[in-house]
Amino acid sequence: MSYNTFGHLFRVTTWGESHGPALGATVDGCPPGVEIDEGFLQVFLDRRRPGQSKMTTQRQEPDRVKILSGVFEGRSTGTPIQLMIENTDQRSRDYGEIARQFRPGHADVTYWQKYGIRDYRGGGRSSARETAARVAAGGVAQAVLKALAPGLRITGYMVQMGEKHIDPARFDRDEILNNPFFIPDAAAVTEWTDYLEAIRKGQNSVGAMIELVVEGCPPGLGAPIYAKMDSELAAAIMTINAVKGVEFGEGMAAAALTGTENADEMRMGPDGPVYLSNHAGGILGGITTGQPIVLRFAVKPTSSILTPRRSVDVAGNEVEVITKGRHDPCVGIRAVPVAEAMVACVILDQLLMDRGQTGGIRGEIG
Amino acid sequence: MSYNTFGHLFRVTTWGESHGPALGATVDGCPPGVEIDEGFLQVFLDRRRPGQSKMTTQRQEPDRVKILSGVFEGRSTGTPIQLMIENTDQRSRDYGEIARQFRPGHADVTYWQKYGIRDYRGGGRSSARETAARVAAGGVAQAVLKALAPGLRITGYMVQMGEKHIDPARFDRDEILNNPFFIPDAAAVTEWTDYLEAIRKGQNSVGAMIELVVEGCPPGLGAPIYAKMDSELAAAIMTINAVKGVEFGEGMAAAALTGTENADEMRMGPDGPVYLSNHAGGILGGITTGQPIVLRFAVKPTSSILTPRRSVDVAGNEVEVITKGRHDPCVGIRAVPVAEAMVACVILDQLLMDRGQTGGIRGEIG
Amino acid sequence: MSYNTFGHLFRVTTWGESHGPALGATVDGCPPGVEIDEGFLQVFLDRRRPGQSKMTTQRQEPDRVKILSGVFEGRSTGTPIQLMIENTDQRSRDYGEIARQFRPGHADVTYWQKYGIRDYRGGGRSSARETAARVAAGGVAQAVLKALAPGLRITGYMVQMGEKHIDPARFDRDEILNNPFFIPDAAAVTEWTDYLEAIRKGQNSVGAMIELVVEGCPPGLGAPIYAKMDSELAAAIMTINAVKGVEFGEGMAAAALTGTENADEMRMGPDGPVYLSNHAGGILGGITTGQPIVLRFAVKPTSSILTPRRSVDVAGNEVEVITKGRHDPCVGIRAVPVAEAMVACVILDQLLMDRGQTGGIRGEIG
Amino acid sequence: MSYNTFGHLFRVTTWGESHGPALGATVDGCPPGVEIDEGFLQVFLDRRRPGQSKMTTQRQEPDRVKILSGVFEGRSTGTPIQLMIENTDQRSRDYGEIARQFRPGHADVTYWQKYGIRDYRGGGRSSARETAARVAAGGVAQAVLKALAPGLRITGYMVQMGEKHIDPARFDRDEILNNPFFIPDAAAVTEWTDYLEAIRKGQNSVGAMIELVVEGCPPGLGAPIYAKMDSELAAAIMTINAVKGVEFGEGMAAAALTGTENADEMRMGPDGPVYLSNHAGGILGGITTGQPIVLRFAVKPTSSILTPRRSVDVAGNEVEVITKGRHDPCVGIRAVPVAEAMVACVILDQLLMDRGQTGGIRGEIG
Repeated sequence: MSYNTFGHLFRVTTWGESHGPALGATVDGCPPGVEIDEGFLQVFLDRRRPGQSKMTTQRQEPDRVKILSGVFEGRSTGTPIQLMIENTDQRSRDYGEIARQFRPGHADVTYWQKYGIRDYRGGGRSSARETAARVAAGGVAQAVLKALAPGLRITGYMVQMGEKHIDPARFDRDEILNNPFFIPDAAAVTEWTDYLEAIRKGQNSVGAMIELVVEGCPPGLGAPIYAKMDSELAAAIMTINAVKGVEFGEGMAAAALTGTENADEMRMGPDGPVYLSNHAGGILGGITTGQPIVLRFAVKPTSSILTPRRSVDVAGNEVEVITKGRHDPCVGIRAVPVAEAMVACVILDQLLMDRGQTGGIRGEIG
Repeated sequence: MSYNTFGHLFRVTTWGESHGPALGATVDGCPPGVEIDEGFLQVFLDRRRPGQSKMTTQRQEPDRVKILSGVFEGRSTGTPIQLMIENTDQRSRDYGEIARQFRPGHADVTYWQKYGIRDYRGGGRSSARETAARVAAGGVAQAVLKALAPGLRITGYMVQMGEKHIDPARFDRDEILNNPFFIPDAAAVTEWTDYLEAIRKGQNSVGAMIELVVEGCPPGLGAPIYAKMDSELAAAIMTINAVKGVEFGEGMAAAALTGTENADEMRMGPDGPVYLSNHAGGILGGITTGQPIVLRFAVKPTSSILTPRRSVDVAGNEVEVITKGRHDPCVGIRAVPVAEAMVACVILDQLLMDRGQTGGIRGEIG
Repeated sequence: MSYNTFGHLFRVTTWGESHGPALGATVDGCPPGVEIDEGFLQVFLDRRRPGQSKMTTQRQEPDRVKILSGVFEGRSTGTPIQLMIENTDQRSRDYGEIARQFRPGHADVTYWQKYGIRDYRGGGRSSARETAARVAAGGVAQAVLKALAPGLRITGYMVQMGEKHIDPARFDRDEILNNPFFIPDAAAVTEWTDYLEAIRKGQNSVGAMIELVVEGCPPGLGAPIYAKMDSELAAAIMTINAVKGVEFGEGMAAAALTGTENADEMRMGPDGPVYLSNHAGGILGGITTGQPIVLRFAVKPTSSILTPRRSVDVAGNEVEVITKGRHDPCVGIRAVPVAEAMVACVILDQLLMDRGQTGGIRGEIG
Repeated sequence: MSYNTFGHLFRVTTWGESHGPALGATVDGCPPGVEIDEGFLQVFLDRRRPGQSKMTTQRQEPDRVKILSGVFEGRSTGTPIQLMIENTDQRSRDYGEIARQFRPGHADVTYWQKYGIRDYRGGGRSSARETAARVAAGGVAQAVLKALAPGLRITGYMVQMGEKHIDPARFDRDEILNNPFFIPDAAAVTEWTDYLEAIRKGQNSVGAMIELVVEGCPPGLGAPIYAKMDSELAAAIMTINAVKGVEFGEGMAAAALTGTENADEMRMGPDGPVYLSNHAGGILGGITTGQPIVLRFAVKPTSSILTPRRSVDVAGNEVEVITKGRHDPCVGIRAVPVAEAMVACVILDQLLMDRGQTGGIRGEIG
């Protein structure tokens, strides 16, 4: 079956294809009385929007989000919020020639195998264009978090693109939105630009690694055992197109550590327990500790490239596929705002669930 | 809230604490008419069972599973299957001294912060003992898969423990169950044994990396977009105690690849399309390709160690914590059968969902 | 929280308010390859559409449904189907005066008490206008049922309106769509028309009883115990605005029967067991028997009437409320196509769930 | 599929068959810190317990509930609570002769048709014995409601059994637990006893009507649109064995009313709005008003009777069925505590969901 909803109390259902008339998200379970308007949501969409530089697809989409329901006189009413984004620059003639071919490494073939029918125009439902709807929904979550958890801040940024890595010593959060890569390292921008331009000219694409930090998350969020905070975050991140792995705190490197190295020791601070390190990435037993949540995920290079690749078509003919459409040479770039949106939704959902079960009351220490 | 159920059509709810009278799993949505008996399930439990060697906790638990419902005259009836495992060797006096202290790196503190109450005996609900219930449920899933997808085989094994790695050149599947590490590399067993013994004697613990392969999985399984096969598998793996990251195919290494390197090209074989590589790990767009599903996950070193660590107690006193109970020096070992169980449940669930929506009919190629 | 989704595998989420720009439904889990077009759906919407006679609200809404996603070249793709209906005749000035008053017997007051904010224009989300979205979704379900259960037919009709009852002896199914009441009794139309006209002129409204029959439903559908076919149908019917009760087969009258009277005896027919009566209404133990499913439900008179009623306003002032908007004198009439839509969705959902768990294989008799 | 879980945040999963070793319920999402012990739960089970008089089945079951998890030192921990009741008096030889026959009006036939296998011993999963597990779970809900909504009181009672009706003029709540019928009318007990004894001796059974009132329910509970309070209550009641209809407030009689008759007018009282009547039964638009919730439901006569009825067997032979086991002549009696349990669970679930979404903050009036 298809399953286009995520969340338990704060539930997001996305709909729409790359080349249909519109796409969008239905957001259900939003707390009432929260200030939300299209302008606030548009800020998030503009970050993800294609066509802003040579670094992303040249498809020109204004990506204007419209609120069709659930907001009255500038505030949420507690009823479902429908967010719609019309597709304007579909140019589907570009894709005509791959209507019968399967791009290697792309969902073309699996959608066909599963459903026996596929909307081949621009990848249909499997297109990264669907993530615009998530970003809009994430904007709603951010608006609610602003009201319910004022100190909470979600920050995503690229740390690697192919051979290039940021220099952690030069980390500057304020630079993230000042460059087309969402990197916190101003000095690297030129080098990364040249590198990606070479990839693009080489009719190729490249992978990426994104890191995401949530500061100010209250302790006690997470629903053991099968909706642990890290399990839910991992699930959400893994739904983003082209993601191949996700890790928390020490992540995959934890396999090499010993218990004495990995334990996050605690002392008492003026406001409660203080951790002396954060190997855990802010989550223990699936529940937040109050430390920053730190996660990383890898995005594979897009499979839509101009270099010919061997494949087959629907009739079983062996073919060489070249994807001529307008595609991102590094789809990982636009994954940054998408991941922020997903994380905002998951954290808000957990906060509402926690408020439901425990009433938000916390065991005190000291 | 707590959330102790996973799955959509094949749903598993686990219950029970480390030192309560029993723990278990309710399995709902099992297809009717499938041969299931306690002996079949016990095989899986025996693999995970503690006390089998110095490599795992010395707690002696027979872990006998009883089927209390849902099976009649040796076959599933389609009604819920209750699987119960009684706790016999609880020895809770061992844990008395940490009733008020929080082990660094353990869920002790977050359960307290979330619920304001915790069953401190052996970690209560957060104990890895809960995974016995999953292994029993996984046995049910394996029984059903045997009937519905006869060629499907799920194989987990360790590939790394701290500084030690298996040698892929010596990979021998038949060795996996012949050693206490679940490693496919007979020549490494002595070395790994000495290494872990040294860790244990050093009052320490160590992390691990597990790889898991699913062969013979039919194409077309996975429920885009928010129940993609890889998203659901990642969520399931991340619910296992101490897991810090999970990846598919190229995984985190995909960040360094280019599109030409990463694409899995296709040719036609006698029975349909054949992939020339498997960078994707058997999943494209969240749907299985028919290639082997390949995933890896990292398990952190257990936080329950004999080396003193700085921490606090409920009253806010700064303390040094030593965990005296019987604990695994490498909790990653027992994660192998647990992961196999989770994967079996997820794949069966997807198979049933797919059968529900599409009727299991597939688009043909060629 | 709000909860605007129903269904397990075939899931419908509705959104939108009476006086917003649009409303609609997201249909997820639709089987792929089914012929669906706007014309097919429009037939169902036209039946429910207001403004067709004096018997229903004079609001003029073309209620044109647009398919925004999930259908490609006339067939469902297995991805979410977005159905949108734009509101064109909102005339919200009519409602201005009740922005602060609560209509007695209306959800005005409870939405306010729950959310602390309400879209008072035309009842906002609590308006029966929301049911247009359900009818569109029900059209999708009908299209799928046509393919998967060709002999299945869902027929709703009014059997009572205030003091008026149909004469079962004159039951003629072909008349149902020939009159504004959906009654199967042509001879009663004039009398009912006069009666309702008198109610309307008396600035009043009136209740109704609807009966609904599902013929050709396969045996074996229903998911015991908490998604029994009758439980799910009752839940679905009870979500329809103004419904106050629902019953199956003998229904409330079963309280007066004895076991010998109530048992539906069986004999063997050429194609399997044949029931000699249908006191059960086609469902035993929550599972369909293959006999017609028979249910009835009562709709209260609309609370929006021109006769002044005592109430209060937001400030706590005691007021007299007259509802001047355009309202149905008998809201039960339009409940007929809405109930058919809900029943179509529930039965399809159960059919898909059953196909998922059992594979649709049936125990044979004889 | 089967579906043995109900609830959203407070979720109950029941398991077990009539003649298996045990049955029970897993209660997930229970708020932490609530006082719960087996004695408190046992009070509810004792009310439902069979074998207490000739009015109910002569099966002798102590129905001792054991808490296997989720409660520590007398308080809930927020983790799943497993409640187990062992079956002791199974006497399955009684049922041997109907292993191949289908009782008319019973789920025997539909379970067979659905699953192709059935546990015929005592009705297996379809037995009313399953409701013992619900009553135990309902006890947990009652314990939580006592803490979170102290003034809330749920009271069920019979109002009709076959030809007999209570006299509302003699209504005395204190009498309900003083007689085997749960009737609030002491003067009727002898007459009802004689009536039911005659039914039983006549090898027959009889239907019943139960009324249930919830006093002290806070306003604002209910999750529009598809988890409306009345929709969820109706669904829960309809899952109880043998229930054929459910209604709220005026219920089915609302079909005969006019809007002026049916409106519940409001005036201001010292503590907020006061309703002058309760035709609505305490629910408007699916949300509670704060007035008493009033519902009624009809239970059919049990189909297991000693009078021979025509039926068929698995092989398709026409047979006469006599059910010799020990069965309730009026299964409606024991439905009273079961309905109270279901209602307690639903209301608590709605309360937790509401707390999750709205934080329990209410719009004020006046």
